[in-house]
Amino acid sequence: MEHKKLKLGLFGFGCVGQGLYHVLNETHGIKAEIKKICVKNRDKQRILSNDIFTFDKNEILSDPEINVVVELIDDPNAAFEIVTDALKNGKHVVTANKRMIAEHLEELYHLQQKYDRSVLYEGAVCGSIPILRNLEEYYDNDLITSIEGIFNGSTNYILTKVFEEKKSYLEALKGAQDLGFAESNPALDVEAFDPKFKLTIAIAHSFGVFIKPEDIINIGIQKISPVDLKYARENNLTIKLVARAYKRDGKILAWVAPQFIPADHMLASVRNEYNAVLVEGAFAEKQVFIGKGAGGYPTGSAVLSDISALAYDYRYEYKKFAQGEGLPFSNEALVDVVVSFSQGSLISPKDFENFKGGYQGNGHQYMTGSVKLEKLKALSEWDDVSVILAPELNLVSLDKSKKELRYA
Amino acid sequence: MEHKKLKLGLFGFGCVGQGLYHVLNETHGIKAEIKKICVKNRDKQRILSNDIFTFDKNEILSDPEINVVVELIDDPNAAFEIVTDALKNGKHVVTANKRMIAEHLEELYHLQQKYDRSVLYEGAVCGSIPILRNLEEYYDNDLITSIEGIFNGSTNYILTKVFEEKKSYLEALKGAQDLGFAESNPALDVEAFDPKFKLTIAIAHSFGVFIKPEDIINIGIQKISPVDLKYARENNLTIKLVARAYKRDGKILAWVAPQFIPADHMLASVRNEYNAVLVEGAFAEKQVFIGKGAGGYPTGSAVLSDISALAYDYRYEYKKFAQGEGLPFSNEALVDVVVSFSQGSLISPKDFENFKGGYQGNGHQYMTGSVKLEKLKALSEWDDVSVILAPELNLVSLDKSKKELRYA
Repeated sequence: MEHKKLKLGLFGFGCVGQGLYHVLNETHGIKAEIKKICVKNRDKQRILSNDIFTFDKNEILSDPEINVVVELIDDPNAAFEIVTDALKNGKHVVTANKRMIAEHLEELYHLQQKYDRSVLYEGAVCGSIPILRNLEEYYDNDLITSIEGIFNGSTNYILTKVFEEKKSYLEALKGAQDLGFAESNPALDVEAFDPKFKLTIAIAHSFGVFIKPEDIINIGIQKISPVDLKYARENNLTIKLVARAYKRDGKILAWVAPQFIPADHMLASVRNEYNAVLVEGAFAEKQVFIGKGAGGYPTGSAVLSDISALAYDYRYEYKKFAQGEGLPFSNEALVDVVVSFSQGSLISPKDFENFKGGYQGNGHQYMTGSVKLEKLKALSEWDDVSVILAPELNLVSLDKSKKELRYA
Repeated sequence: MEHKKLKLGLFGFGCVGQGLYHVLNETHGIKAEIKKICVKNRDKQRILSNDIFTFDKNEILSDPEINVVVELIDDPNAAFEIVTDALKNGKHVVTANKRMIAEHLEELYHLQQKYDRSVLYEGAVCGSIPILRNLEEYYDNDLITSIEGIFNGSTNYILTKVFEEKKSYLEALKGAQDLGFAESNPALDVEAFDPKFKLTIAIAHSFGVFIKPEDIINIGIQKISPVDLKYARENNLTIKLVARAYKRDGKILAWVAPQFIPADHMLASVRNEYNAVLVEGAFAEKQVFIGKGAGGYPTGSAVLSDISALAYDYRYEYKKFAQGEGLPFSNEALVDVVVSFSQGSLISPKDFENFKGGYQGNGHQYMTGSVKLEKLKALSEWDDVSVILAPELNLVSLDKSKKELRYA
């Protein structure tokens, strides 16, 4: 196969951009060169000499020699504009902007067709884990029934530190920020928007449907309390922020929420900034991918793999979309949950579809049972109420095989 | 891209062949059809009508309409002949015969060049796990430093049953055979030849060197004793058969041996017929792939993915080989080990490079310390001596980062 010589124009030179720069410098065998880097801040000290930088996006977009735009900025609206302009100008695009991609995925699909150019974004979903490429290339003929896992490195780092090192939530968050794992706006991580964006993208490549991220319910980790941690420890559980999507009764169900996980479950061993993606298909059955979900090098390596693939004219074929099942999205799920709250709250057994039990002590109260997903979201928005999905990883009416998820 | 219509000629119709047949029947979107199946046994009852079967290999090899030969027989010598003839006759090949591939990998590489045809063999290494494709396509620019994991489903099933359900070794082996996980000759599994063949193949795609399987030391699980299990349980450990290869000091080191694994380590949660592959690279850092390593459907799905890739004229590029570091192979490793044996054996502290300690009781004796790999192999061949690598997953002089293998 012919390897094309690639001239790159970079937008953004933060954690991932610098990671890419180093990775590109240290690797062999890929013919790609950064010609220009467009940045916003004119005053920042940078590790490279000034002449590679520009503050004018057109210096990249209008340069006919640059054939690949690598978009690594923060602002999703500006990013979408850059990507659109790059495609219009005949350039391929590599981006890691999960929010922009999730919000514009269907448009991006059509833009790629229209301008006959490729947009690759492996770095946007779970850092170094090659999940999109595998969904596209390797599971192209498998009938995928579910995709789920730990999709956010920052919250997994926080939960690990809070849980295993008994750090405070704020101390752990600070640690994640210092290490460059956290989004610039931490609410995107801890309120579970970031993993939702990734799940939206993963759904498109697993099931061939384009869903708006706002349709997916996300519940964050910011209200997990010391009593929840105590409950977990006493029951030999840990807590993970789990993103999940699956097919049932001809619909796609999906959400992101914290969940109790048995200590001997594979997901429990995924610590710190590691992510895990579990794909279930009719033939390959259960497949797990674990890798670093955050950090300049791991994400930079995913971006580099995309760049390398462009040298072979690779593009996503959206095979599942082309095969066209087109299932509708639904939030009509019933989930098993542990709801914990201060005594005196107005939550009652009537909020549950099936109330299992409850107990109280030290001014705190628990209730367990199954709740409709939308009701759960509403409960989670009350002050001092924390909701965590029950350790049975299966849904109430999911099939038996789901129970064996622990690789037992 | 153009999707070619594929006409398949199958050799063998055992567990994987039948799995492939079903997977091919149930999937959509792949234009491939089995035209002929060559089998050996004329008297067997089969699930398909007689006219698809033949007993003459030339009915497939000389049929100009058949463009892909899928080789799924047991006998490695006959398999190599079939593959060679198929390539000579202008056909692409998909095979899952790990022994044949491991023993002839360099020849297969040259035959592919010579006849300009592709040989794909994802199903040969860890069943459904797409490890070769990822090494070739995704980590093509990463500098891989190690690859290791659980490479044999049958022994992992046996160890899980023996360990967690307290079954006897023979009972567990019988279970693995009944489920179709075991090789027809169980010694290939339990004496760790099968995972060694897979490791040989993985090494070629990770480090770009062709090693003879007989150069790699393999120690099986057949001598693990009830006292070893007791030792493990008392120390919160489990035992796994671990295959490992890594670069050190400009050499490739590799072996397969049983190892104690801490209960909270990710590998401990990989149970039954599941396999796990852990790749470490300079940029993507640690990546884990988990999936079923045995069984008709999982392996059939890997074979199907190879067939599907042929529709796009895919072939392994052996990029690491092309990049040509060509490191030499070496067995010059020092490993930490627990040696257990009946009292009165001639094993002494002098057999160790660094003797750490030992104790005895109930007619049994342990010694721990570090031993040269070749010495360890010799010790393992004594009657009633069981050797199990120590739970520190790192080698004595491996770098620090290795210690963090538990994703802590």
